[in-house]
Amino acid sequence: MDDLARILEFLVEIDALKQVERRNFLADGSRREFTGEHSWHLGVAVVVLAPFAAEPIDLATAVTMAVIHDIVEVDAGDTFAYDEHLNEQKAAREQAAAERLFGLLPAATGTRLRQLWEHYEAGDTPEARFVMAIDRMAPMLLNVTEGGTAWREAGITRQRVEQRNRRFVEAGIPGLWPVLAERLDRRVASGDLVDEHGTDRLGDR
Amino acid sequence: MDDLARILEFLVEIDALKQVERRNFLADGSRREFTGEHSWHLGVAVVVLAPFAAEPIDLATAVTMAVIHDIVEVDAGDTFAYDEHLNEQKAAREQAAAERLFGLLPAATGTRLRQLWEHYEAGDTPEARFVMAIDRMAPMLLNVTEGGTAWREAGITRQRVEQRNRRFVEAGIPGLWPVLAERLDRRVASGDLVDEHGTDRLGDR
Repeated sequence: MDDLARILEFLVEIDALKQVERRNFLADGSRREFTGEHSWHLGVAVVVLAPFAAEPIDLATAVTMAVIHDIVEVDAGDTFAYDEHLNEQKAAREQAAAERLFGLLPAATGTRLRQLWEHYEAGDTPEARFVMAIDRMAPMLLNVTEGGTAWREAGITRQRVEQRNRRFVEAGIPGLWPVLAERLDRRVASGDLVDEHGTDRLGDR
Repeated sequence: MDDLARILEFLVEIDALKQVERRNFLADGSRREFTGEHSWHLGVAVVVLAPFAAEPIDLATAVTMAVIHDIVEVDAGDTFAYDEHLNEQKAAREQAAAERLFGLLPAATGTRLRQLWEHYEAGDTPEARFVMAIDRMAPMLLNVTEGGTAWREAGITRQRVEQRNRRFVEAGIPGLWPVLAERLDRRVASGDLVDEHGTDRLGDR
């Protein structure tokens, strides 16, 4: 098969990412989000947030990373960020998926995308840390806008949201966490998100 | 509102693109495609097809263009490619949408994205011609894989598919059209796509 035909086969194969369902809902709450459209949202977010990256980044690398960072979910599925048991087995499933999926591409392109994905997973480049910050921000933004249904379903508190996401957001985009935290606090105030310390502590933040 | 807060509002606003329904179906035929996920698919396609672009392109510009090229549909909706009447009014609706949506962003970023979108619409840069080729290729690829339901619904023949798309595909990615045409011919042979000249002409291509 020639290179263009291989690329078309790859594009057909990854079309399945449009139907991998995530836990969080869209901003308007009408349905859960799929990984394909999540990856698009990240791509746009990378473009518009690039001026705020903590370190100098290469935009082409960062946007590419955003659109390919979840391709392994075609085989490995989505793993809810707060499910610690499933997250332990996630690495092995995703490595096998990366092997197969990037292996569908012409060698040079497949190798480059595989390496970008490895960097993303390791968080060992400026682009990886920047995209990771956005990947943590995006579902938080949808959850706080929608009303926190996915968090309530799983019994996630404001403290766990902060514990899991804050350091990644701060490492990639200085100044973004306070803007998100303000929205989290509004959800606590409206009763949609549980504060483990109770609402009497709200004034302390 | 500070710049980061404006950017988050923009990201919430464009979340609606995940629910703008297009005519074509996903590759597996299970449902129609949404514009958000279509834009993601284009972003990946830009990355993997970049080595085959007809002209030298800047990858960051091309991927950015791919992920923002349909943002105006948040307000203007999707216009079926083969609906000539609706396409006549499309430009005015999309200009108003671009004004509002890119206007939500900090000025420098909003202006840059608006300009990229104008270039895309005009097809007056190498990146625009490359992304346009991919935007024409992608729904064709899904249609031929799925079985051509959207074409059959609208009475679209193989000739109209070729007339509407071939010149754009060829202008952006030399060598891609024959690979797509082979798949179109398979759909004609399987009876899923109508050939205006009848199946006796199949051997001529």
